[in-house]
Amino acid sequence: MLTTGNIGAEIAARIGALAAISEDRTTLTRVFLSAEHRQANECVASWMRAAGMTTRIDAIGNVLGRYEAARLGAPALLLGSHLDTVRDAGKYDGMLGVVSAIACVASLSQADERLPFAIEVIGFGDEEGVRFGTTMLGSRAVAGSFTPDLLARQDKAGCSMAEALSAFGLDPTGVAGAVRKPGDILAYVELHIEQGPVLEAKDIPVGCVTSISGAARFEVEVVGQAGHAGTVPMDARSDALAASAQCVLAVEHRCREPGLVGTVGELTVEPGAINVIPGRVRFTIDIRAPEDAQRRRATDDLRTEIAAIGAQRKVTTAMRLIHELAAARCAPWLMTQIGDAIAAEGIARVNLPSGAGHDGMAMVGLTDIGMIFVRCAGGISHSPAESITEADAEAGTRVLLRFIRDFKPSKAR
Amino acid sequence: MLTTGNIGAEIAARIGALAAISEDRTTLTRVFLSAEHRQANECVASWMRAAGMTTRIDAIGNVLGRYEAARLGAPALLLGSHLDTVRDAGKYDGMLGVVSAIACVASLSQADERLPFAIEVIGFGDEEGVRFGTTMLGSRAVAGSFTPDLLARQDKAGCSMAEALSAFGLDPTGVAGAVRKPGDILAYVELHIEQGPVLEAKDIPVGCVTSISGAARFEVEVVGQAGHAGTVPMDARSDALAASAQCVLAVEHRCREPGLVGTVGELTVEPGAINVIPGRVRFTIDIRAPEDAQRRRATDDLRTEIAAIGAQRKVTTAMRLIHELAAARCAPWLMTQIGDAIAAEGIARVNLPSGAGHDGMAMVGLTDIGMIFVRCAGGISHSPAESITEADAEAGTRVLLRFIRDFKPSKAR
Repeated sequence: MLTTGNIGAEIAARIGALAAISEDRTTLTRVFLSAEHRQANECVASWMRAAGMTTRIDAIGNVLGRYEAARLGAPALLLGSHLDTVRDAGKYDGMLGVVSAIACVASLSQADERLPFAIEVIGFGDEEGVRFGTTMLGSRAVAGSFTPDLLARQDKAGCSMAEALSAFGLDPTGVAGAVRKPGDILAYVELHIEQGPVLEAKDIPVGCVTSISGAARFEVEVVGQAGHAGTVPMDARSDALAASAQCVLAVEHRCREPGLVGTVGELTVEPGAINVIPGRVRFTIDIRAPEDAQRRRATDDLRTEIAAIGAQRKVTTAMRLIHELAAARCAPWLMTQIGDAIAAEGIARVNLPSGAGHDGMAMVGLTDIGMIFVRCAGGISHSPAESITEADAEAGTRVLLRFIRDFKPSKAR
Repeated sequence: MLTTGNIGAEIAARIGALAAISEDRTTLTRVFLSAEHRQANECVASWMRAAGMTTRIDAIGNVLGRYEAARLGAPALLLGSHLDTVRDAGKYDGMLGVVSAIACVASLSQADERLPFAIEVIGFGDEEGVRFGTTMLGSRAVAGSFTPDLLARQDKAGCSMAEALSAFGLDPTGVAGAVRKPGDILAYVELHIEQGPVLEAKDIPVGCVTSISGAARFEVEVVGQAGHAGTVPMDARSDALAASAQCVLAVEHRCREPGLVGTVGELTVEPGAINVIPGRVRFTIDIRAPEDAQRRRATDDLRTEIAAIGAQRKVTTAMRLIHELAAARCAPWLMTQIGDAIAAEGIARVNLPSGAGHDGMAMVGLTDIGMIFVRCAGGISHSPAESITEADAEAGTRVLLRFIRDFKPSKAR
């Protein structure tokens, strides 16, 4: 059983230990198949073993722990989240779900309590997509939607995913070995910080997710004509950055409608010198909406508008889809059981959608999904300012443990 | 004497040799105090020696060659240009002025012709300012306007100019040793590609410069709030890139008036991930005008507008002047002699201003300046598309040689 007052502090300590595994000293950045990824896997596996689980690294580099059922080899309830981060990240996004699930298993293990189903905890190696510009590589490999063409994708240093897998000690031709059989998995349930303002506004520590917004990501390339900043008259320029600036504002303007969000997160300028008119700009667009049709309408409008900006400014524009995930609905039967666990912990039931993407979007191709959200300060994440309280971490973990102990597999299986 | 048909080809060959000295294989980029700078100095010094000059590297890393007068130690007519480049540069900007001046001296030397004054040819190590974000370090050191605070400036890798000088084998405390005495220098005359469209439009190969536009450069930092691209509603964002995009368009809009040009050439986004709202953006502004008052009015307006954009969007903005050079007028007595040389070569006299900055802006603090422009294709420069004909290179060099042989120092000295 979880001991009041200890769990929150223990989770905080483990979150702190993972936050120290970063590619630089002053900020938290940990990307797929890096040395820091390996170190995080080893750290998490040691906690899993201490919690009575057997551990392994799967064919894409996810770390897995298994706590057997009363009957050996029984199907498993799969819990977990991801261990990679964005650049200059907060320390809860992803990690909290792995650490809290391990704490729940440790609690069962300490009481030598076996359930009618196995429990597996997974730490996905890539959800954020920072290194290869495409997300959820870990969960896509597990769910069977990882396609071999992804192996050719390169990081910014020109290293392909196949090369990165080999350097990590994995066989790039064997990624299919990570796929799980639907019959072996009863459901996938993830605990995660909300990353939005809803629970804080309602003053409630834990909520149940109804669905995950769909997302599409694009790379846009704008090519103009580099030239001397002092000699080319303003009306004779084909300035790739001025055109891109207009596109950035067009994304912002078009996405100002309820539910929809649009972001230009990366933008690079070539040649990138103080006295040279930019000749080429590459930027990204990330568009999300709870309804796929709404997102597609916005995408179509922006494609038209960006082409029009290019034509007007005598620059060429190309907008390429690099990632798309449909909105994913959480399974009603899991929402009921999560809601019951929340209520049993004395917390008001709140259902809310997720504006952020999660591994559930890929896992829904394998099994039914559910999600538990924990309140975070100011709705801020993907930033070092990301913050939750120890009390809320503990409340979320208590909900998760109760859910696990009361879990009844779907009769529809 | 210059032999018709040889000079253009020889200049083209030497331009090609310098263009091969680059920090990468596919483009031309050569910055101050780099290994490529050293290599270019060695190459140019060997040509200078072959042309009968004694050579040295001065205290800031400029390469200098001296061709003595009939009387040893006589004051010198200083010719030259710069050997550094922008990123992904053209091969004529700077280099043509050094190579053509050496060709002129070679012609005198072959005929064993000594003049009543010495000739010095200088290849400045920094004019473009790419590495340390501030221009004309070479000519400022020679003219005595290099200030010691510049030594603390860092490049993007965090290397200070002082460290870079040491690594180049120079003494950072001895930069003042590069300063020339006004009595030793009769004038500074630079041959350069026009980098603008005027001579091409008039179908004339060579022109005489009247003045160089003044320039100011700024670094702008915009700080918002990083956040999750999926969860922060559009109206709750403090997006540093969206604010910066508005600033880029404001620069473009404000500078649409005759004579004035404004450019945002560098822009970097932090944290710079596809799924993170940008928290911090840094960009540069380069503003130039033939009249300093016009430039200052535009600068003041932009400072006000950028602050207003910041206030409206709840981001902080800071705009810092990093470089300023007043407009520089060419000396009328030099313009007369340059014009006479142009006419004597059978070319129509054309006077034109320079929208681009040149080392003359710094050298005017030491001595009178003159400039000879050579026509270039499409007015394009700071780009691999920069191009001139061998015939025009030869015409410019012939004008320069005639100017040198007929040169009469100012009576006002």
